[in-house]
Amino acid sequence: MTRVLTGITTSGTPHLGNYVGAVRPAIATSRASGVESFYFLADLHSLVKVQDATRVQRSTLEIAATWLAAGLEPDKVWFYRQSDIPEISELNWFLTCVAGKGVLNRAHAYKASVDRNRAEEEDDDAGISAGLFMYPVLMAADILLFNANKVPVGRDQVQHIEMARDFGQRFNHLFGGEYFTLPEAAIEENVATLPGLDGRKMSKSYDNTIPLFAPREEMRKLIASIVTDSRLPGEAKEAEGSHVFQLYQAFASAEETAQMRQAFAEGIGWGDAKQQLFERIDAEVAPMRERYHALIARPGEIESILRDGARRLREKYATPFLAELRQAVGLRDLSHRSEAQDKSLQKSTPPSFKQYRDTDNRFYFKFLDGNGVLLVQSNGFDSPKEAGQLIAVLKRADQADAMETPEINLLVPVQEVLTALGQLREADA
Amino acid sequence: MTRVLTGITTSGTPHLGNYVGAVRPAIATSRASGVESFYFLADLHSLVKVQDATRVQRSTLEIAATWLAAGLEPDKVWFYRQSDIPEISELNWFLTCVAGKGVLNRAHAYKASVDRNRAEEEDDDAGISAGLFMYPVLMAADILLFNANKVPVGRDQVQHIEMARDFGQRFNHLFGGEYFTLPEAAIEENVATLPGLDGRKMSKSYDNTIPLFAPREEMRKLIASIVTDSRLPGEAKEAEGSHVFQLYQAFASAEETAQMRQAFAEGIGWGDAKQQLFERIDAEVAPMRERYHALIARPGEIESILRDGARRLREKYATPFLAELRQAVGLRDLSHRSEAQDKSLQKSTPPSFKQYRDTDNRFYFKFLDGNGVLLVQSNGFDSPKEAGQLIAVLKRADQADAMETPEINLLVPVQEVLTALGQLREADA
Repeated sequence: MTRVLTGITTSGTPHLGNYVGAVRPAIATSRASGVESFYFLADLHSLVKVQDATRVQRSTLEIAATWLAAGLEPDKVWFYRQSDIPEISELNWFLTCVAGKGVLNRAHAYKASVDRNRAEEEDDDAGISAGLFMYPVLMAADILLFNANKVPVGRDQVQHIEMARDFGQRFNHLFGGEYFTLPEAAIEENVATLPGLDGRKMSKSYDNTIPLFAPREEMRKLIASIVTDSRLPGEAKEAEGSHVFQLYQAFASAEETAQMRQAFAEGIGWGDAKQQLFERIDAEVAPMRERYHALIARPGEIESILRDGARRLREKYATPFLAELRQAVGLRDLSHRSEAQDKSLQKSTPPSFKQYRDTDNRFYFKFLDGNGVLLVQSNGFDSPKEAGQLIAVLKRADQADAMETPEINLLVPVQEVLTALGQLREADA
Repeated sequence: MTRVLTGITTSGTPHLGNYVGAVRPAIATSRASGVESFYFLADLHSLVKVQDATRVQRSTLEIAATWLAAGLEPDKVWFYRQSDIPEISELNWFLTCVAGKGVLNRAHAYKASVDRNRAEEEDDDAGISAGLFMYPVLMAADILLFNANKVPVGRDQVQHIEMARDFGQRFNHLFGGEYFTLPEAAIEENVATLPGLDGRKMSKSYDNTIPLFAPREEMRKLIASIVTDSRLPGEAKEAEGSHVFQLYQAFASAEETAQMRQAFAEGIGWGDAKQQLFERIDAEVAPMRERYHALIARPGEIESILRDGARRLREKYATPFLAELRQAVGLRDLSHRSEAQDKSLQKSTPPSFKQYRDTDNRFYFKFLDGNGVLLVQSNGFDSPKEAGQLIAVLKRADQADAMETPEINLLVPVQEVLTALGQLREADA
């Protein structure tokens, strides 16, 4: 079973670009067999950019209604609101503690903001919130909490998936277990990027969108306002590169597309082409639009669907998995003594040296007390023999001087190390 | 009622310095009248530095037992474990979104790590985790969630309280309400900083501590190992500047201190002075040590006390307050329509211009639709008259050109603004 996870930030009103680029393909994927799908409303992410509570609330309602109107079946997929899963915020902190700050410095979105500041001769971080800087970590928490295998993203988001892999891998390494599945970016090569009213990519940030569920007449007017060249009816037109044609293609069958290409070559007028485009889009959107408005009118039902999804998802995955992660990092029930503690109470385990080879292929050793607490950590050696020779020296040591070699690092006072060495000699005697 | 909040990071074994510097004065404060005290085990903070789960667990147990052994009364104060309050992690993200990254760049602890990297000719952020960078935000969440008035800190922590004030103030401003009380640092001038075995400040990071509940004989030995000068018995000794004397003073009455000063002048031998120091400390510590070991032997009871504290605290403060904050930022129950939404459904509220003066003392206006969604935001003007003149121009506008003035910023497509202006004219007609 492949787990596929998709989130949409609740910061605006869904437009045709969101539908073609994210909603429609995601719903198609959700119907594939062998897939467990996770769809969430990324409302915590929206707080990075939006400080308008009404807009966040309205957008959450609109996006939830859009998914449902477009055919998402909340009893067959996981459909939930990010902020209903407190485990995401908790994991966000665990991952913050393992994420390298240097990795975050290199995030594209953050760097683009810094570049804009430099171009305007501002301080690098002027007006940049910690939220913008940290959101790759929150995104990693979204993904890793559910051990998603695949995350469908555009090329611009691939770096975030790599970061999620990096943080997950680091956590697995630091806490010694295969806690997290490392996710893969599923890059959507075949998904059309729609042009907006002005011909640039349709995007909220360019103010050039066509709302997916705009009233019929408004959608007609918006489509009529798409920028074109000034060729007259009867003049042949290039289909390739025409925004009107690109939009048509995103909604039409291969046959319809071929007919439109022909019409362009034969000099269809822009007014007629736009009218056909409107009709083609409306044919797909109209039935959803009706469902959408019916859903929006019953926000209590949407709220129940979302809460129910979050409740079941927490019960099945989030809560037990976070409990496991808490155990891993040491946020534990104090009454459950760890094995190491029990041994310490019985005073039966002597301190010990542990030799190992690390991922850098060098040879290391540790010296641990009977509780498993790290007392001494060595640097890397080229061979296990060198490490062994120094261990032999340390085993005989009963003076603080012996600890002054640069090849070891003391994590506790030197007295404690000497005491533990004494205990080890007693146990070995 | 003044709320006083104190956290101790669960990363090590409590030593005499923690006791004299934090535990003892905090317990004295908790018994003052007019004070509501919050004591927490900062286990989420410990994850910034410690990747050893056993150590975090053991330290949590030891620190909890220390507070209780030292006389904290969990039915009279709030005593809890940070990670038992998921609302702290949730608020951490809200504050992350309002915190300026530039503010965090200036945090002393982070800057000190960067300076060390530079001294070693490493990359600025080499080996620095996002946890180190972000922990002032988590600390702000600890404080602001309970609207603490006072946070007792050493001088080195004052900056963090200032940051908590900054983030709280920014949130209040952005979301238009007095959500957070702004905390004040209570700088502990009178609290002794204890010298450690080597004379530097007693600190885990210097490996020079005397564990608070070391067995009696171990404590005697450790005290005997405190570094002194080589003056012989019979030679007069300076009390001021002597680490042995400083330690004695931290535990002794004024009268005992005066006697010891006299003994120094009269040439008490170091061995005798250290024996008296040991006895003085042991007199204060011994009864606590007994309670401590009894508590450590019953970790289940400590676990219950902590859980009970967190449960009551969440019920009384954390859960209802976070619900209020979720409402403020827009993470809302969708079935509770906001007033603005209801009005929009009734189509009764026309769009409107709002003029206001901001904290920079300049004059601004906004143009909002009937839902209260921001359509246009002006830049600052020197006088309300100038703002009013541009509003008058915009009210008459019915062409996109009119929106091209650099003094306004469109947050939605220009068509939407023109539609809303038309609605406003209709409503005014």
